[in-house]
Amino acid sequence: MALIVKKFGGSSVATPEKIRAVVQRVLKEKKTEDKIVIVVSAMGDTTDELVTLAKRLTSKTYGREMDMLLATGEQVSIALMAMAFQAAGQPAISFTGGQAGITTSNAFNKGRILDLQPQRVHQALEAGNIVIVAGFQGMTADGDITTLGRGGSDTTAVAIAGAIHADVCEIFTDVDGIYTSDPRVVPEARKMDTITYGEMLEMAKLGAGVMQPRAVEMGSRFNVPIHVRSTFSEAKGTMIQEEYAMKIKQYLIRGVAQDNNVAKITVLGIPNRPGFAYKIFSELADKNVDVDMIVQSVRIAKEGVTDITFTIARTELSAAQEVLHHIRAEMNVEDILVDDGMAKVSLVGAGMAGHPGIAAGMFGILSDNGINIEIISTSEISISCLIAEESVNKAVQAIHAHFFAEE
Amino acid sequence: MALIVKKFGGSSVATPEKIRAVVQRVLKEKKTEDKIVIVVSAMGDTTDELVTLAKRLTSKTYGREMDMLLATGEQVSIALMAMAFQAAGQPAISFTGGQAGITTSNAFNKGRILDLQPQRVHQALEAGNIVIVAGFQGMTADGDITTLGRGGSDTTAVAIAGAIHADVCEIFTDVDGIYTSDPRVVPEARKMDTITYGEMLEMAKLGAGVMQPRAVEMGSRFNVPIHVRSTFSEAKGTMIQEEYAMKIKQYLIRGVAQDNNVAKITVLGIPNRPGFAYKIFSELADKNVDVDMIVQSVRIAKEGVTDITFTIARTELSAAQEVLHHIRAEMNVEDILVDDGMAKVSLVGAGMAGHPGIAAGMFGILSDNGINIEIISTSEISISCLIAEESVNKAVQAIHAHFFAEE
Repeated sequence: MALIVKKFGGSSVATPEKIRAVVQRVLKEKKTEDKIVIVVSAMGDTTDELVTLAKRLTSKTYGREMDMLLATGEQVSIALMAMAFQAAGQPAISFTGGQAGITTSNAFNKGRILDLQPQRVHQALEAGNIVIVAGFQGMTADGDITTLGRGGSDTTAVAIAGAIHADVCEIFTDVDGIYTSDPRVVPEARKMDTITYGEMLEMAKLGAGVMQPRAVEMGSRFNVPIHVRSTFSEAKGTMIQEEYAMKIKQYLIRGVAQDNNVAKITVLGIPNRPGFAYKIFSELADKNVDVDMIVQSVRIAKEGVTDITFTIARTELSAAQEVLHHIRAEMNVEDILVDDGMAKVSLVGAGMAGHPGIAAGMFGILSDNGINIEIISTSEISISCLIAEESVNKAVQAIHAHFFAEE
Repeated sequence: MALIVKKFGGSSVATPEKIRAVVQRVLKEKKTEDKIVIVVSAMGDTTDELVTLAKRLTSKTYGREMDMLLATGEQVSIALMAMAFQAAGQPAISFTGGQAGITTSNAFNKGRILDLQPQRVHQALEAGNIVIVAGFQGMTADGDITTLGRGGSDTTAVAIAGAIHADVCEIFTDVDGIYTSDPRVVPEARKMDTITYGEMLEMAKLGAGVMQPRAVEMGSRFNVPIHVRSTFSEAKGTMIQEEYAMKIKQYLIRGVAQDNNVAKITVLGIPNRPGFAYKIFSELADKNVDVDMIVQSVRIAKEGVTDITFTIARTELSAAQEVLHHIRAEMNVEDILVDDGMAKVSLVGAGMAGHPGIAAGMFGILSDNGINIEIISTSEISISCLIAEESVNKAVQAIHAHFFAEE
C-alpha cells in the first residue's frame, strides 16, 4: 500500500472530458490498497477569466474579495472531479483548502500556510475515498478565504503530502522532468533522474518554472519525495529528494537557470544613517513585495550618502511603485531609478562553494560574450548574475555549453 | 437610521455592468446612517451552466459535490459586488453563506437553515461596511457546503433579516409586486399593496412564483416585513407583513394562484393495515420529496384494500420513481399510476374558512366550465383543486373573473 498525493494543473483539467481522462489514468495506476489524495488547479484559463471579469468592474485589486472570487475556480474543478470518480464507481470526496485543514496567513493573494490539520482528509481516506483537494487556496484563522499566489497548487500538494506523511508527491506537468537548463533555450539540455531539494530550490528560485520555490522548500522541510512527471506519459520523471537518498553520482554542477521576471530599482542618495534601508524594505514587505538581490554602495565622492540597488519580480513592480512614491515624497533621497529590462542567469549545483574556479569560469564566459554583470549573488549551491534581459538566452547557452561540455 | 436587507436575483447581477447598476441604485437610495446587507444570487444563467458542466461528466446527481459546485456561482457574484462597492468608494465585504453564520441541515441540494449566528455580519456593519452575502447556500455543522434548493436566495435574505432584526427585507424582482393572479394568465389581475404572511404563504405554496414558501414562512416566524418590489423602478411594491400592521380594508379573497409543477401518483390496492401509508411517505421524505395533497379511499367492493392518491412537485418525479420501484417490488400493491399532466388552482384569502359559500362558488365555476376536480384540499385561508393542466388557465381566468368582479 502506498499513500500518494498527485497534483494536476489547470491544463490537465481544462474540460469535463480531460477531467475524465485524469480519473481514468489515476484509476489505472492505482493499486487496490493505495490511498490517494489529488490536488487540482482551476480548469484551463478559469483564473484568468475571473480576473478579467473583475477588471470590468475595477482596475484596482481588492485582496480579500479577489481571493473570494479566484477560489471558486478550484472549487469547480474539485466538485467535478469528485463526481467523475463517483460516476466511475470510485468513492470520492472533494475538500476546499479550508475543509482540508489548511490555515494560512491573512496576506490575501499571497497567503502562507501556517498550519495544516488533515483530520478530515485522513477520515475520508480511511472510509475508502479518493480525496480531492482544491489547490492554491486556504483559510485564515478568521475563516476568510485566501489564495497562495502563483503556483500555489504545488505548495498545497506538497504541504498535504507532508502533513499526511505521504510516500510521494507526484507533480504532473507538461514537461517530463527537470532539465539542466530550459530546453527551449538550450536544445542540448538533459533531463535529470534525481535532484536534491537544495538544488531544485535554487533552480526554482532562479527561474526554472517547473516548480514553485515555496513548494520545494515545503518538501525539504517535511522530507516529502517529489516526483515531477508528465501528464501525457507514464515514464519516470525527475525525483526531488534528500541527498542521501540519491544513488547516482553527484554532479558538481546541476543546471543553468534563467529568470526574466526581474526589475531593478536603484534608490540614489540615501542619507547613510541606520534605519533608512530598513524603512524601504519593511514598507515593501508590508505590500508583500519580495526583494531578491541587494547591493548597497557608499559613495566615495559624497560622504554620508549611499545608493541601494535591489531587484524584485517585474510582476510586482506596480505594488512596489506605491512604496517608491511614498519614499520619494517623504524621505530625503536624490532619485529613484527603475529598470524593468533585466534578467538573472544562475549556475546551480551542490558543493560549488568549495570550488571558486566555477564562479571565475562563469564570469569569464559572460565577459567573453560581452555581457555586463550588474549584480552578483551567491549561495552555498548557486551563483547568480544580473544581466540585461536581451542577453540572457545567449548567456544561458554559453554557460551551459561550457560547463556541460567539460563534464 | 434603518437596517435593511436587500435581495437581488440572478438577472439583476448577470454581468459586471449590471452589478455596477445595482451598486449605483443601492448607493442612491441609501441614507447616510442606513446599514445595508445585500443578498445576491449567481450571475444570470451561471447555475444552469454549472449543472450542464456536471452533466457532461455524469447523468446522476451527487448531492454533496453538486452543492460544492453550485455554491461557486454565488461566491463569484458576492466577490464582484463587493469590489464594485469598493471601487465606488463604499467599504464593503462579502461573506459566503457559512461565513455569514448560516448553519443548515445536511440535506444536500435542499438544505434547511437550522441556525444563524450573524456575529460577523454585525461586526462588518458596525465597521461601516455594506455586507454582501451569498444567497442559496449555507454550511453544515461539519463544515460542508450546502445549497438551499430553488429560490433559496429569498430564504437567505429573510433569515438574515430576521437574525439581525432588520427593519425590512426588500426582495427585488422582475415584477413590481404581488398580483391577485398571474398577469400573464389573467390580464385584469391587480397589484396588492399589502398581504399577510399567511395569505402570501398560501399564494406561494399554491404556485405564485414571486416568492418561495419557505422564505415567507421564515418572515412570518421572525416577523420580518418583506417588501416585494421591482429591480427596474423605485415604485413601492407589495408589503408582506402581519395582519395588525395592515392599515387597509381586509379583503376576504386575496388572489387566485396556479401551480403547474404537479404530478399525481396513485397507489392501488394497498393492504389496509396500519403502517403501509406511513412507509410510503417516510421513504419519500428520506429522498426529500415533499407530498402535497393526499386522498385515501377505502374500496367498498373489496374489503381490506385501499387506494392512496397524492401529489408531488413534477420536478421531483425522478427521485420519487426510485421509491415507487421499491414499493412495487417489496410491498404487495396492485399497481402504481403516475400522471404528470396535472395542475392545481387555488383561491386564497384570510377568513375564507367562515364562508362556506366561497368553496361552493369555486366548484360551481369549475363545473360550469366543464373542468373535472380530482382532489380538493382546504386550509384556514385557501381552497385548492387538482385539475388537468390543459384546463388550468381557463380555470384561473374564470375564478378570477367571478370573485373579483363581484367585489
